[in-house]
Amino acid sequence: MPTRIHFGKGEVNRTGDIVAAHAKKALLVTGRSSTKKTGSLDKVITSLNKAGVSYVLFDRIEPNPRATTIDEAGRIAREENCELILALGGGSAMDAAKAIATVALSGRPIHEYIRGSKASKWKELLPITEALPIITIPTLAATGSEANSGAVITNWETREKAGIGGPGLFPKAAILDPELTYTVPANYTADGAADIFTHLYEGYMTGDEHANVQDELTEGLMRNVLIYAKKALDDPKNYEARAHLLWTSTLALIGIAGAGRGGAFPVHAMEHTLSAHYDISHGRGLAIITPAYFEQIILADRPHRLARLARNVFRITEDNDKRAAKAGIEALIHWYKEIGVYDTLQGVGIKREDLRLMADETIRVNGNGTNTIPGTHNMTADEVLSIFEASYE
Amino acid sequence: MPTRIHFGKGEVNRTGDIVAAHAKKALLVTGRSSTKKTGSLDKVITSLNKAGVSYVLFDRIEPNPRATTIDEAGRIAREENCELILALGGGSAMDAAKAIATVALSGRPIHEYIRGSKASKWKELLPITEALPIITIPTLAATGSEANSGAVITNWETREKAGIGGPGLFPKAAILDPELTYTVPANYTADGAADIFTHLYEGYMTGDEHANVQDELTEGLMRNVLIYAKKALDDPKNYEARAHLLWTSTLALIGIAGAGRGGAFPVHAMEHTLSAHYDISHGRGLAIITPAYFEQIILADRPHRLARLARNVFRITEDNDKRAAKAGIEALIHWYKEIGVYDTLQGVGIKREDLRLMADETIRVNGNGTNTIPGTHNMTADEVLSIFEASYE
Repeated sequence: MPTRIHFGKGEVNRTGDIVAAHAKKALLVTGRSSTKKTGSLDKVITSLNKAGVSYVLFDRIEPNPRATTIDEAGRIAREENCELILALGGGSAMDAAKAIATVALSGRPIHEYIRGSKASKWKELLPITEALPIITIPTLAATGSEANSGAVITNWETREKAGIGGPGLFPKAAILDPELTYTVPANYTADGAADIFTHLYEGYMTGDEHANVQDELTEGLMRNVLIYAKKALDDPKNYEARAHLLWTSTLALIGIAGAGRGGAFPVHAMEHTLSAHYDISHGRGLAIITPAYFEQIILADRPHRLARLARNVFRITEDNDKRAAKAGIEALIHWYKEIGVYDTLQGVGIKREDLRLMADETIRVNGNGTNTIPGTHNMTADEVLSIFEASYE
Repeated sequence: MPTRIHFGKGEVNRTGDIVAAHAKKALLVTGRSSTKKTGSLDKVITSLNKAGVSYVLFDRIEPNPRATTIDEAGRIAREENCELILALGGGSAMDAAKAIATVALSGRPIHEYIRGSKASKWKELLPITEALPIITIPTLAATGSEANSGAVITNWETREKAGIGGPGLFPKAAILDPELTYTVPANYTADGAADIFTHLYEGYMTGDEHANVQDELTEGLMRNVLIYAKKALDDPKNYEARAHLLWTSTLALIGIAGAGRGGAFPVHAMEHTLSAHYDISHGRGLAIITPAYFEQIILADRPHRLARLARNVFRITEDNDKRAAKAGIEALIHWYKEIGVYDTLQGVGIKREDLRLMADETIRVNGNGTNTIPGTHNMTADEVLSIFEASYE
């Protein structure tokens, strides 16, 4: 994990010095409004100015960032001779920065790098071994994108949301200043927590079952998400809560907690279809489909794993695995309700008649040329549809 | 953490390819006999030959590696134009490799880099920002040296054992093949486990107390040491046991479990004096003095931390902190006895009349110019002596 972590109160004010070690001119990538309202953008700009780093501001990253936006920002970075992409924002800004860094260096459109996209030929993908240097400043504890080598990009025309990745995308540095997350609204805080929790359970449920070190680390991080999401919602400017949540989000996807365990991300695959078709929050989408996924897939295939999670994370005291697993699902739903992410597909505006299409699309985009997606077993479109239907109302 | 981890069964057979990415010629550093007896050295040499990497063998690293040996190996690496130092062995071989890589690049004797050494001027130490590339192949789960930037070197003439460190010492890669540890004798396996456990509790006891993510990760790793040390002793060729123990040893000192928590290593400081004066095993020395350290220092300063460890690691159910802490010490002693590291200073051949001198030396070598060493409070020579005396018989 080659990304250097700068963690702590006020670290954002060191941005200029940290960037200056890599570049004289940066493309500063952020969204349209929130970092301006909260003052984070001002802090970053002040720090860049103080360190003598020049920058070009690109402030048009949308939630679920789109390929067309990436290509435009990449063109600007090339024309302006930016030597580094600096991301300020949530997962969208950080994922966009990775894609922009790729396009800016190669001059090729991002769709050539997107896995499973209609526009890309799956087997002829360009591996991303190099890109412009990237530095991330997360303003939200959620995606873990700040310190790993993956990103998710949406092609809004084809309704495809899929991943890019490669060793060239590891940020040079991640500046984790928990105070930047004080102003995150409750719904984003909760959606972010649901996202972190999902990152933790996906590999835990689907990966190698003989990796107790990884399991214990993962359970420890899960317990932290449960506790500190609630604390951050109760008291948004509680440093300890925000710091724990932010550090957990980074550790959840940094490759350490589940190192070597392998595993698949079927719930992410399903959710990405939902948010490619409907512009819903990723974390919210994950929370909506997780209970049905646990009921229909994990309870059948690996009830003992769900039971272990129930006991070690939700403190369920029940010896029978199936009963413990079911109690774990109930406890998870209870937590979703407490933090305010419990919802239905109908509740976020999805139409029932689109479920079939979205189930098929999940397989097409993530199926890697097969008619299933990997999980505890290879899941079919019908199984995905069944989960969507159970999550509908 | 820039070290690339190659973990798994048979990974040692990829050594040649992994080294070839960095160098055409390596100095292969190992001890006098065990890697020859077990066949590990043959595997490494076969792999180097297959990949066309030439090497010079330096097989004279002693336990508690000495400055004179380092300087000689460094001279050989320079004369032979070795481009990389490849370590095969336990903490001694890996620590030696880091020191040799430093000397080989700079041409300066290692004592100029050793913290707290009589020979070095504390405030004029050369920071180790560069060294020859290093690759480690641990044959023992213990020191965690395989993937961090520190090392401990002994000056046998002055009876000083002290650290070197710096960003230049991170290995390029660590090849973690649990099968290489199948042949580790029971006493080394147990000493290694005691060492890992100490790495985990030192920062946990002395560092920031508001770092629950780090605490949970640390406790998870501790539980793994307890379990898998016993399994490895019961069944030395159990892959799962050896793999878990090896991965835990790496994670314990990789900087992740305790990241940002800070903390001090007073028990290591005390033990280093013991093994600088008497050539005892580091892990055994740690196990001998830990109960008295817990009794005299932690029980007084932070009984709640010891109580937390007792509850979360040893599953003590006791609400009162002092009582839980005391039960935790008993449980730890019980584990030490089970794995066979429970001992006394007298039992490993240390003379009572040397205790005072060694207490004073602990402060001098580790005191950083002050007359105390850091811990939950700044500990004096008298406090160190008191711990040594309580551990004597």
